[in-house]
Amino acid sequence: MRVGLDVGGTKTDAVAVDAAGRVWARVRLATGWGPIGVVQTIADAVDALVGAGVDRDAIGSVGVGMPGQVQPGSTHVLHAVNLGIADLDLGVAVERRLGVPVGVENDVKAAALGADALRGGTDRAGTLAYLNLGTGIAAGIVRDGALWRGRHGTAGEVGHIAVDPHGPACTCGQQGCIEALAGGAAIARRWGRAAPLPVVDVLDAADRGDARAAMLRAELMMGVAAAVRILVLTADVDVVVIGGGLSGLGDRLMRGVVAELEASAEASAFMRSLRLGERVQLLPVGSPAAALGAALVGATRDRDTRETVIHG
Amino acid sequence: MRVGLDVGGTKTDAVAVDAAGRVWARVRLATGWGPIGVVQTIADAVDALVGAGVDRDAIGSVGVGMPGQVQPGSTHVLHAVNLGIADLDLGVAVERRLGVPVGVENDVKAAALGADALRGGTDRAGTLAYLNLGTGIAAGIVRDGALWRGRHGTAGEVGHIAVDPHGPACTCGQQGCIEALAGGAAIARRWGRAAPLPVVDVLDAADRGDARAAMLRAELMMGVAAAVRILVLTADVDVVVIGGGLSGLGDRLMRGVVAELEASAEASAFMRSLRLGERVQLLPVGSPAAALGAALVGATRDRDTRETVIHG
Repeated sequence: MRVGLDVGGTKTDAVAVDAAGRVWARVRLATGWGPIGVVQTIADAVDALVGAGVDRDAIGSVGVGMPGQVQPGSTHVLHAVNLGIADLDLGVAVERRLGVPVGVENDVKAAALGADALRGGTDRAGTLAYLNLGTGIAAGIVRDGALWRGRHGTAGEVGHIAVDPHGPACTCGQQGCIEALAGGAAIARRWGRAAPLPVVDVLDAADRGDARAAMLRAELMMGVAAAVRILVLTADVDVVVIGGGLSGLGDRLMRGVVAELEASAEASAFMRSLRLGERVQLLPVGSPAAALGAALVGATRDRDTRETVIHG
Repeated sequence: MRVGLDVGGTKTDAVAVDAAGRVWARVRLATGWGPIGVVQTIADAVDALVGAGVDRDAIGSVGVGMPGQVQPGSTHVLHAVNLGIADLDLGVAVERRLGVPVGVENDVKAAALGADALRGGTDRAGTLAYLNLGTGIAAGIVRDGALWRGRHGTAGEVGHIAVDPHGPACTCGQQGCIEALAGGAAIARRWGRAAPLPVVDVLDAADRGDARAAMLRAELMMGVAAAVRILVLTADVDVVVIGGGLSGLGDRLMRGVVAELEASAEASAFMRSLRLGERVQLLPVGSPAAALGAALVGATRDRDTRETVIHG
């Protein structure tokens, strides 16, 4: 049995996955703050899985997906600011606590692996992009069932590609970045109205005919469509799976994105030939993709069962 | 000895490459029109190489790079419009004529292989993009010494990615495509003034202070810089080698492109960390990249020597 955890800024999603890659148990809990709080949360999540019937002695590995930079092949986490972690070898800390091999991966990359695994065996010989629409925007690319990072780790870093020279300023310093158009934080900042779900507030206001909200909505759809086109036309991904907080918008997001993609297909026979509208999918709300992907990352630390799980 | 040919709209560049991948002889001749003219040109080029001292009996394979679509793994060429070829199995036609195995590849993809080979052994374990700036714009990507096409063959097809929603109309039907900003044909059409080298005419006029020419020049640099950013941030290429007709602009092109890349690095610490300005290179004028790459493609048909040449 492998445990995978998606450690988010507010909550942690944990699953226990069997050798065939099936999710056997799942628990959710609030995420603690800082190195101590995060390690405690991970230990608590494992306890909760055991409470849910997982045999503690049968846990062969633990994989953790979390925001921030993770050096490839290491368990060292940098700049996980919204978890209060500046620099921590999470693997060492968790292995000491739990006594099982631990793997750590950036949460978007872990979710990409999970999204690919959830699509099942059939499409594993291909390329999938997982486009995470959260406070920020990034994509993870999985080729033939394995994460594709690129030598510099920038494969899929579409968030800061500028697609409108006259577009809004991005926190990165450029103008018209995809993240400035379609990132949750950027939209909330530009909308400027306090709301529990700012992007939902924007879409509701747009539906009521608010012109500025309609513009923000159009830029959201344009930004996501641009990310899809760039992923397909540069990395030739077969499918783009959209996840992250904004994927909770469901049809309201998909309708707009597909309409944008179909508008370019209308205009261009070349774009039409790519059938982009059919190649975009929404990760189902509540999907365990990130935690499942983390379990697969953890499993790679578990040498003797590596094959089973990676291709499971 | 392997022969490689870059069959262009006006001239054909042919090289003979030894087993170590060294260019042993090189000839250039005018390209004939239509299926018969092109096959004749290839036969004439081989004769010319023999005339230049290549032992005809030592020619193990012939590789052809040409514009148009080539079905991966096949020698079937489609839509090579400026050669007068709509649909031709060039391999069958040339093998019948020359009696050696023939490989065929799209010219941009062949040039990418050649540009990678010309960079020598050291960097072969990495990813190179060859960005062809000609009448149109496309890139070929080579990963670990092998062409990376992607399952749909769209890897590196950055020409029709829109990077300015308010940009000029593209012949593809979209607006603000990289090709509409930086493609030679688009610039010539928008400039509208008859000149042997329209883009040079634009740059000269811009240097003389012509405002419209300065705008076209700025859009050229912006479009090329956008292609470089997209290739690095999506496919994580280590280096972007710029070739094609517009690469003849040399420093006038490079200065402008690097300035654009450095402006975004100025603005953004993230972009700065990518050191894009240092990762762009110009293919030397008169480089045999495309013909050399074609020779490598031909060599892959020559089973027993495949390894030698691909890694040579």
